Amino acid sequence: MTQEALIEQLAAIVGADKVRTDDDSLQTFGTDWTKIYDPKPSAIVFPKTTEQVRDIVLLANKHALALVPSGGRTGLSAGAVAANGEIVVAFDYMNQISDFNAVDRTVKCGAGVITEQLQTFAEEQELFYPVDFASSGSSQLGGNISTNAGGIKVIRWGMTRDWVAGLTVVTGTGEVLNLNKDLLKNNTGYDLRQLFIGGEGTLGFITEATMRLTRAPKNLNVLVLGVPELDDIMKVLHQFQAAMDLTAFEFFSDKALQKVLARGDVPAPFESSTDYYALIEFEALTETELDTAMTLFEQCLENGWVADGVISQSETQAANLWRLREDISETISEWTPYKNDISVVVSKVPPFLRDIDDIVTREYPDFEIIWFGHIGDGNLHLNILKPDELAKEEFFQRCNKVSQWVFETVEKYQGSVSAEHGVGMTKKPYLQYSRSAAELAYMKAVKAVFDPNNVMNPGKLIDL
Amino acid sequence: MTQEALIEQLAAIVGADKVRTDDDSLQTFGTDWTKIYDPKPSAIVFPKTTEQVRDIVLLANKHALALVPSGGRTGLSAGAVAANGEIVVAFDYMNQISDFNAVDRTVKCGAGVITEQLQTFAEEQELFYPVDFASSGSSQLGGNISTNAGGIKVIRWGMTRDWVAGLTVVTGTGEVLNLNKDLLKNNTGYDLRQLFIGGEGTLGFITEATMRLTRAPKNLNVLVLGVPELDDIMKVLHQFQAAMDLTAFEFFSDKALQKVLARGDVPAPFESSTDYYALIEFEALTETELDTAMTLFEQCLENGWVADGVISQSETQAANLWRLREDISETISEWTPYKNDISVVVSKVPPFLRDIDDIVTREYPDFEIIWFGHIGDGNLHLNILKPDELAKEEFFQRCNKVSQWVFETVEKYQGSVSAEHGVGMTKKPYLQYSRSAAELAYMKAVKAVFDPNNVMNPGKLIDL
Repeated sequence: MTQEALIEQLAAIVGADKVRTDDDSLQTFGTDWTKIYDPKPSAIVFPKTTEQVRDIVLLANKHALALVPSGGRTGLSAGAVAANGEIVVAFDYMNQISDFNAVDRTVKCGAGVITEQLQTFAEEQELFYPVDFASSGSSQLGGNISTNAGGIKVIRWGMTRDWVAGLTVVTGTGEVLNLNKDLLKNNTGYDLRQLFIGGEGTLGFITEATMRLTRAPKNLNVLVLGVPELDDIMKVLHQFQAAMDLTAFEFFSDKALQKVLARGDVPAPFESSTDYYALIEFEALTETELDTAMTLFEQCLENGWVADGVISQSETQAANLWRLREDISETISEWTPYKNDISVVVSKVPPFLRDIDDIVTREYPDFEIIWFGHIGDGNLHLNILKPDELAKEEFFQRCNKVSQWVFETVEKYQGSVSAEHGVGMTKKPYLQYSRSAAELAYMKAVKAVFDPNNVMNPGKLIDL
Repeated sequence: MTQEALIEQLAAIVGADKVRTDDDSLQTFGTDWTKIYDPKPSAIVFPKTTEQVRDIVLLANKHALALVPSGGRTGLSAGAVAANGEIVVAFDYMNQISDFNAVDRTVKCGAGVITEQLQTFAEEQELFYPVDFASSGSSQLGGNISTNAGGIKVIRWGMTRDWVAGLTVVTGTGEVLNLNKDLLKNNTGYDLRQLFIGGEGTLGFITEATMRLTRAPKNLNVLVLGVPELDDIMKVLHQFQAAMDLTAFEFFSDKALQKVLARGDVPAPFESSTDYYALIEFEALTETELDTAMTLFEQCLENGWVADGVISQSETQAANLWRLREDISETISEWTPYKNDISVVVSKVPPFLRDIDDIVTREYPDFEIIWFGHIGDGNLHLNILKPDELAKEEFFQRCNKVSQWVFETVEKYQGSVSAEHGVGMTKKPYLQYSRSAAELAYMKAVKAVFDPNNVMNPGKLIDL
């Protein structure tokens, strides 16, 4: 099919004003935050209904076209990049929030609803959508669900998976499925919904989702603790979790903290410094929780696990303490960091982290390693800063070696090569470090069931 | 293959003492709680390791044998019944609990570990396994996971699905998969673990699972409220959920209560009686939660939603209030009840229940309908008692008509024909009331991927 005929057929489905082929649009909608691949889509199409998405998929099947779904384009694994002449299906116009039900605490969202839009909507209903992360202001729900997005509150509220009551999807053969009908309990065979969650659009495209909301937490308090020994962070976690429900248990290294403090925007948590820090958040409905937290803090001090600490005395101070953790990513971006998002079971975090530290430091002593992450979930963000004197190309080349070591260490500790960022194109070559050959073969076969002609986001996650 | 050769080959895998063909064993291990089908297995085999299970599956593939998994045999949908000469694979000897990790709060369980065994183990570690239901004393984890068992604490702690950190399964082709490696965060493509949860052994058999444990709740308090109007139960639920986290929100009708009280084992909750009752349970870490609950109770009284109520003043009283709800099932068993386990979204419970009540009462005015269930999850247990003067056969025949009406009503309200009991054989003919033709076709195709020779629990859930 000629490009002209293609545009005509797409326009017949969505209307001429909803097909774009200008350079600016192709560049913008053809890529995500990875910026590794050059975007080269053939067209960007903006459906407004599930039926239009279905018609696009049927057209793709008929003419062997490749489709790439595009949400907020904040992905970090190139899962929504169109580098091979694909048609990008952008969900920006499917951004309606509807059918809120106060008793069920559910609300229907188009795939293009922005995460923050749902969070704000929930607040207006005096409820709470708990999945939150750095890109909430631009990421879209369809993308969140397709990558099973996690973030900073997983320890208490889980991943996106846990908040999806129902899904409308268009499969690779153009079938429209309404999965799970928003039910809390529904044991009628294979829960196909779970395959599309985290499926990265390779089995079908999510067009609508019914999301659950919950009670908003009240009076969140933040503790930042200085922890000299990495192993002791696990003891602190264990001590706190045994006594109270935490809403966050984050971690960062002193190197990370120093970078953030150097910007001068946020005060230091306390005067002394230690190699590692834990940030603990909890809900204090009454004074009792505050007393419990203080007692636990004192026990940690007495046991020598914690050298110093601070507890927020106001919402402003809590927000400032959070910034010590949340500003890291942006702060270090000027060093063109090599990033990796990996996980192991919580108890294995210290030896796993040390192993990677040791290898990288031995091989590349000039590399500065910045660790932070959701340690309460076993999820670490490894960041390596480019030394100023090293050329970009040389740095990236060396980082390929680092990746190899990291993934071998992940395999040794039976961890995940992608804790919360998905697979896309960047992690696809490394899947075998986390999934067995038999699993990969089954994944291929599952892909073939839902997308036999390989039109849905081909080249991402797994090849047919 | 002759029966003799079969026994020999099975004995070669598990040892001669782990194969049984005596009548008693065939009768016992060939059925579950449904007792509708006559058990006719050809042999019962008791593997002790995943490798033995794999070898049995490979043997079944080679000789086109059918395998039925057997756990605690407490199923209510005939999912573990061997009525056609199948080999029953019983997991009773795979009942080891091991590898407890206090930091990760996980523990490895053989498929044959009894639910209560895990609950007790958790208690010994000062932790909690929260999935609980009437058959916990005999049901096995492999079965719980294969049917995604729910129960009485779903509103706070979710279904079995939410507690499975990792699974070891033997697929229908004899592949051993270690799924998810017990990770909290692992976004490396299709989460195949989710297919085996609720898969009723039709894709593969679960041999081991790593289960999560959590903090044990403290000081659970129970409220029983008399609610004259069904619609008002939803208002009570909404009022309570907006203000506090509930650990249970159950419901039963006055007809159910009167049956339980007539046994004379438990006192009435209060003097007056109303058509419906709500049982609310919550954790009171401090006096504040008790005060909140009392305030909410008073508001419900003032609004006229609640006519009377009682709050437990001791653990004994709490236990007695729970018995009003938990004793129903056993109490009514003498009336040979027709049972159905169905769900709709929570807000639709009142009109849904009324619709079914109206049809059954109109058509069979002599039938007594007993409602109870997990109303906070939209899950209702419908029970119809056999009138004394009606012959069993006639009653069951009429109940087939009732089933038809029930499932048509389920379809009308977009509900589930099996909320928590699974599909097995009894719900298989009615799956289309909850799943579309396209979904059923995909389910068949998924089955074909994992069990192409249809050796794993054939005839259950979905036919190849």
